[in-house]
Amino acid sequence: MSLPTKITDLIVKDIRFPTSLEKDGSDAMHTAPDYSCAYVILKTDSKLQGNGNTFLNGRGTQIVCCAIEAFRKLVVGQKLADIFGNFGKYWQSLCSEDQIRWLGPEKGVTHLATAAIINALWDLWAKMEEKPLWKLLVDMEPEELVSVIDFRYMDDALTEAEAIELLKSRQTGKADRDDKIRKLAGEAISKGMERFKMKVGADVEDDIRRAKIFRETIGYDRLWMVDANQKWEVQESIDWMKKLAPYKPLWIEEPTNPDDIMGHAAIAEGLKSVGIAVATGEHCHNRVMFKQFLKANAMQYCQIDACRLGGVNECLAVILMAAKFNIPVCPHAGGVGLCELVQHLSIFDFISAGCSLENRMIEFADHLHEHMEAPVKIKNGNYVVPTVPGYLVGIKEGTIKQFEYPCGSEWQRMFADGTFEPDV
Amino acid sequence: MSLPTKITDLIVKDIRFPTSLEKDGSDAMHTAPDYSCAYVILKTDSKLQGNGNTFLNGRGTQIVCCAIEAFRKLVVGQKLADIFGNFGKYWQSLCSEDQIRWLGPEKGVTHLATAAIINALWDLWAKMEEKPLWKLLVDMEPEELVSVIDFRYMDDALTEAEAIELLKSRQTGKADRDDKIRKLAGEAISKGMERFKMKVGADVEDDIRRAKIFRETIGYDRLWMVDANQKWEVQESIDWMKKLAPYKPLWIEEPTNPDDIMGHAAIAEGLKSVGIAVATGEHCHNRVMFKQFLKANAMQYCQIDACRLGGVNECLAVILMAAKFNIPVCPHAGGVGLCELVQHLSIFDFISAGCSLENRMIEFADHLHEHMEAPVKIKNGNYVVPTVPGYLVGIKEGTIKQFEYPCGSEWQRMFADGTFEPDV
Repeated sequence: MSLPTKITDLIVKDIRFPTSLEKDGSDAMHTAPDYSCAYVILKTDSKLQGNGNTFLNGRGTQIVCCAIEAFRKLVVGQKLADIFGNFGKYWQSLCSEDQIRWLGPEKGVTHLATAAIINALWDLWAKMEEKPLWKLLVDMEPEELVSVIDFRYMDDALTEAEAIELLKSRQTGKADRDDKIRKLAGEAISKGMERFKMKVGADVEDDIRRAKIFRETIGYDRLWMVDANQKWEVQESIDWMKKLAPYKPLWIEEPTNPDDIMGHAAIAEGLKSVGIAVATGEHCHNRVMFKQFLKANAMQYCQIDACRLGGVNECLAVILMAAKFNIPVCPHAGGVGLCELVQHLSIFDFISAGCSLENRMIEFADHLHEHMEAPVKIKNGNYVVPTVPGYLVGIKEGTIKQFEYPCGSEWQRMFADGTFEPDV
Repeated sequence: MSLPTKITDLIVKDIRFPTSLEKDGSDAMHTAPDYSCAYVILKTDSKLQGNGNTFLNGRGTQIVCCAIEAFRKLVVGQKLADIFGNFGKYWQSLCSEDQIRWLGPEKGVTHLATAAIINALWDLWAKMEEKPLWKLLVDMEPEELVSVIDFRYMDDALTEAEAIELLKSRQTGKADRDDKIRKLAGEAISKGMERFKMKVGADVEDDIRRAKIFRETIGYDRLWMVDANQKWEVQESIDWMKKLAPYKPLWIEEPTNPDDIMGHAAIAEGLKSVGIAVATGEHCHNRVMFKQFLKANAMQYCQIDACRLGGVNECLAVILMAAKFNIPVCPHAGGVGLCELVQHLSIFDFISAGCSLENRMIEFADHLHEHMEAPVKIKNGNYVVPTVPGYLVGIKEGTIKQFEYPCGSEWQRMFADGTFEPDV
């Protein structure tokens, strides 16, 4: 097959699944999400195409699709050699688009749109190299890998030279880890223990009651985490969690507002004596925020989101910073396509950056994978190393016909039978 | 005239002015902006309507318009008594919309959209009370004023009770200040000295050369500020500004990335010995970020943006926090409609919260005001106290016909003669 040389078209699809009917994925702040994605198809002058997505919660997906369209001129017509030859600069050209930048910068809808496009470009690149994304990444020389990162606003945490040095220093044992992963292709990465997470924050007495049941059921040898989904004030987080401390949660996830670096630092400090760590990051919107969380000891577990950060390029920046600060990266997953994406980032982290599986985990939710062309595989409670070339790889054509919003056949059926009213 | 009781329609207009032709408002990060706004018209069951806007830079305005449309169901059909009777809760219902919240939360496009709607509601309320917005605000009892604020995630900086206490404690002299302002209606607020701002960050030698010329021209008795528009890394900001220190700038504005609280704190600390303060805030997206900037001594001048924060409700939260931390509020202005908006916030701050004019100033740019139904008036280099009921008041019908994008007559003319290509 001839390799593509340029992007010839950009197609955006608003794909929504009616998960609110079953309350899948609901939490304190998102009581009835319809798991969705803005799905990007990049057509090229060959048969290969790049597919990317950003995970969303239903209403509002059309806004991200509108933002993706706004970047069309920076994508369609571009030569792939120009993009991949200086991917760091290309990434910056999206994030710093002269007029659109005002709408962020590098946060919210415009950054989610950037992620979908950037993810599709990496998918295309990996397919061109006939490698799963993680393999494309780990095979890059440190200098080449680092060239995809925009280091602006990072030099008080990690410079380009330090990043290269860090990657080089971790090359010891890299061949072994790479070998291990390749041998495990088709097998689970490790036979880890089972891990459990409980939602908290509605009622402290009820949380204590359920914590007790949890520990009676799973014992104290398995890891158990709690998640407050941004419910609390700062002091309230400390007070509440101290009451749950006897049940030994490994971490409290998202105790308060995701922008509150100093608040998370105060919570981490306040809970140090009872051995509870702070995990956050799924709503953390760019490398500048992660830089501060890491510098301020405000996160002990770094939960990057592959679609909220500006795609692979920025995820790599954060993974390298976390490696320097010795903080385990445990990506946020679930949703639509997130599991498919983040497994690549975690394998890269294991082989090239963090170089450890200790305290590393990836979230998993067992639904909607049937819509993926290359769904994640799970074995013994662990992700199986992916071997299909690409990153997201793709969403099935039949799924798009059914669940594109609002024109898909399933949505039309549900509007007709009154299950849903059309949005707007 | 009968008073409105509910919102009957929401109309959104994408208004753009071709300012890139003249390079008006360009800076290091925004080299050729077309000053624009997403303009909201709230129709009611009376003749009164609320008009609000959010300032934008051209391309991407359609994304914010799309986001405003996404909130339609939360706006149209609402009773005004329900909104204004518990405005804090209503504000929260927009910011925390179950599915749309994922796209922020409270930042970027969705928060800019919130601001436009919220600003239009305040405009309507002020018109119903037949008062300019500042007068509506200063006439509220402390408890009533505070009830419009969403205090979530603020209680480690300012609680509701503290806010009421602060407002009550500042009531001494309030009548005098209110009286002073009312007597000045139609006159300039104060005959302040002239103030000057210079863009820096491209070339340090050239900055020194221009600083020298500035000071030779204006002397050392007038205030002189410099603005780097987010150009630098943290240490670079300190090193660069130390070279400009002999020319005694009052502040360095936006030295680095606007999300970098700890970076700004380090810069402020590094420049303390040479007497240069840090000013920032025009890209600071919500009260949680401002809370941290204030607590970390990372801003000595608080430059709120009336449309980037979620409208008046959140501006009040930040103004009250700044008053507690004794930091002067100097709103960001210029753009489209910003000057018209922020004058009300500054007068409220003077009468009820900060209660001082010392070191307070509002930016001003003398263009595009001719498109406003109630343009700001400037006298002796100062804003004249506004007396027209409302907040933004409105944009002229003729302006909309000419500059709505892309259908307005001026845009159609400029597409036809090749001055501009249509966006997308």
